[in-house]
Amino acid sequence: MPTFTQFSPDTLHNFTARVFEHFGVPQEDATTAADVLAYADLRGIDSHGVARLRTYVDMLTLGRINPTPTIRITRERASVATVDGDNGLGLVVGPKANDIAITKARESGSGWVSVCNTNHYGAAGFYATKVVNQGYIGWSMTNTTKLVAPFQGAQRMLGTNPICIGFPAKEELPIIVDMASCAVAYGKIEIAGRAGENIPTGWAIDHEGCDTTDPAAMVNGGALLPLGSDADHGGHKGYCLAVAVDLLCGPLSGANWGPFCPPFALRQEIPERSVGKGIGHFFGAMDIGGFIDPDEFKAQVDEYRRVMLSTKPAPNTEGPILPGDPEETERTQRITHGIPVIEAVVSDLRDIERETGVTLT
Amino acid sequence: MPTFTQFSPDTLHNFTARVFEHFGVPQEDATTAADVLAYADLRGIDSHGVARLRTYVDMLTLGRINPTPTIRITRERASVATVDGDNGLGLVVGPKANDIAITKARESGSGWVSVCNTNHYGAAGFYATKVVNQGYIGWSMTNTTKLVAPFQGAQRMLGTNPICIGFPAKEELPIIVDMASCAVAYGKIEIAGRAGENIPTGWAIDHEGCDTTDPAAMVNGGALLPLGSDADHGGHKGYCLAVAVDLLCGPLSGANWGPFCPPFALRQEIPERSVGKGIGHFFGAMDIGGFIDPDEFKAQVDEYRRVMLSTKPAPNTEGPILPGDPEETERTQRITHGIPVIEAVVSDLRDIERETGVTLT
Repeated sequence: MPTFTQFSPDTLHNFTARVFEHFGVPQEDATTAADVLAYADLRGIDSHGVARLRTYVDMLTLGRINPTPTIRITRERASVATVDGDNGLGLVVGPKANDIAITKARESGSGWVSVCNTNHYGAAGFYATKVVNQGYIGWSMTNTTKLVAPFQGAQRMLGTNPICIGFPAKEELPIIVDMASCAVAYGKIEIAGRAGENIPTGWAIDHEGCDTTDPAAMVNGGALLPLGSDADHGGHKGYCLAVAVDLLCGPLSGANWGPFCPPFALRQEIPERSVGKGIGHFFGAMDIGGFIDPDEFKAQVDEYRRVMLSTKPAPNTEGPILPGDPEETERTQRITHGIPVIEAVVSDLRDIERETGVTLT
Repeated sequence: MPTFTQFSPDTLHNFTARVFEHFGVPQEDATTAADVLAYADLRGIDSHGVARLRTYVDMLTLGRINPTPTIRITRERASVATVDGDNGLGLVVGPKANDIAITKARESGSGWVSVCNTNHYGAAGFYATKVVNQGYIGWSMTNTTKLVAPFQGAQRMLGTNPICIGFPAKEELPIIVDMASCAVAYGKIEIAGRAGENIPTGWAIDHEGCDTTDPAAMVNGGALLPLGSDADHGGHKGYCLAVAVDLLCGPLSGANWGPFCPPFALRQEIPERSVGKGIGHFFGAMDIGGFIDPDEFKAQVDEYRRVMLSTKPAPNTEGPILPGDPEETERTQRITHGIPVIEAVVSDLRDIERETGVTLT
């Protein structure tokens, strides 16, 4: 069993912000970037919080990410825009582009912002949740480094391309849909590999495109499968979702797409060619009041929750929950008890302490 | 083996339009409704074409659908609106609401229209394809009569809630994502039932919420499963998609949602209560020129196609294709060779001939 060290949310947030500052990221931007990582750490999305700091540090150290980007709108109309992130941290570019979507929603009913020349933006849910907290319906998508095979394909051509849509409620919790378009997270393959366990069929293929239950066969030149997995279970639908997210983030903004998305981490291969600038995101905000009385909408979202929770449970389950609930349960726990950080990540953070002189206390 | 009769697309279109006119639908609206059904019949989406005419006729005969609706915008801002369909045919309300989305996209960069008090709107792809043909990115969703269990649920609470997003290309075919958010279409359960065959696990549950391979167990009080099927394969993700579509179509417009969507066909049960008006749709159109040079975007969509088609094929497959391609292949065939209509549907059409005096020739 791996061991964990508990950290308070503030300790991790402060450390993260000061590490970004160490690399020349302006204080306000560094705080924003730390907010995005803290969102994931607080909600149990451990793969997208401080666990990724090592990679951001590597990229900043090598000058592969611009710590002081000039983020600008390159084209716009009343309700849409494209933002060029000037190769900044996705954790800084993303929040600024997301805010532009909110401003446009306030001004014209909805705002849709495609982003190019950016990098990994953390957890998709951060953005939609921020929009929801301001009373709007929020959308967030990003394309990512290739890991997933197209339906009927035998090689990695698509990212895990998540889609997030969040809806505010009145008295109950908001409903936050946040899902990758592949069958399972890469992290689950790694966990099975470390534990020496097989993975279920439907998760991955090997380097020849054959179904595999061996996590190593996926890691070594294989690929994840799209949501739906195979022809019988709708694998073409997960592929469709991944393509839609990719087209909204890539070609629409002028970013790279598909197999040409630049790698997030140093160990990943550099694509053979570039078809755009950086990776891409896509944000949306919709003013509920442009459609219906917001109070009426939010009361219906409350009722939606109650009705779904009243569903007869499937055998051996606790019954349906609502999208976003597991993350919220985890957040309540972690605010009180702190964030458990796995040994390997603590070791990374200690290395970063030594390299930067920023102390983790 | 079932037998089929070939009809020319024009014959079916003319018949359909005149049948709608017979029930008092104004000529222009009747033609539009026939266009929507012809879209499906031409593309091999046989469940959504003339096969549904029997049901539309039943609903019109009983006065459960308004043949002459006053379709009006109840609320709007520059880029968003809600439309009340006055209980008209979804085949008439849908196209009008979709056109409002296009107009708003032309005027302010994007247009998003939620629709209440409407009925079954045919194939989701019709709407996005129409938007794409005018050079915009098109979105189309609808909620539908309950058939699908929530993740970890043991009863029908959600519709098949499809989502469609279409992207125009330059020289190549457009990319049209059109997918239900459940693992498999209800029609495939029916086909297996008629053939006396088992269905794969992951498609459906029985009335107690247990996995079943017996099509009759799903039909008689069971439910379809969401895309992803089970906990191991991302069934929660398909559920998330279904919820997002439902919230955009139902609470946002003031339509019914979840288990309260009124039935499409006479044989289906009437929900125990109503939480809104009719069912709901959601349409979107985005002006590519508000984001990027449309020519550049479309050239990238062409390149996207070529790159995906160049993927190494998985064993025993012909390799990846692009979303929308199977329907386009079918359309090319059927324009030349006619539309094969299955015996049971021909029999329905002959009944309608007798009932209405409209001849099918």
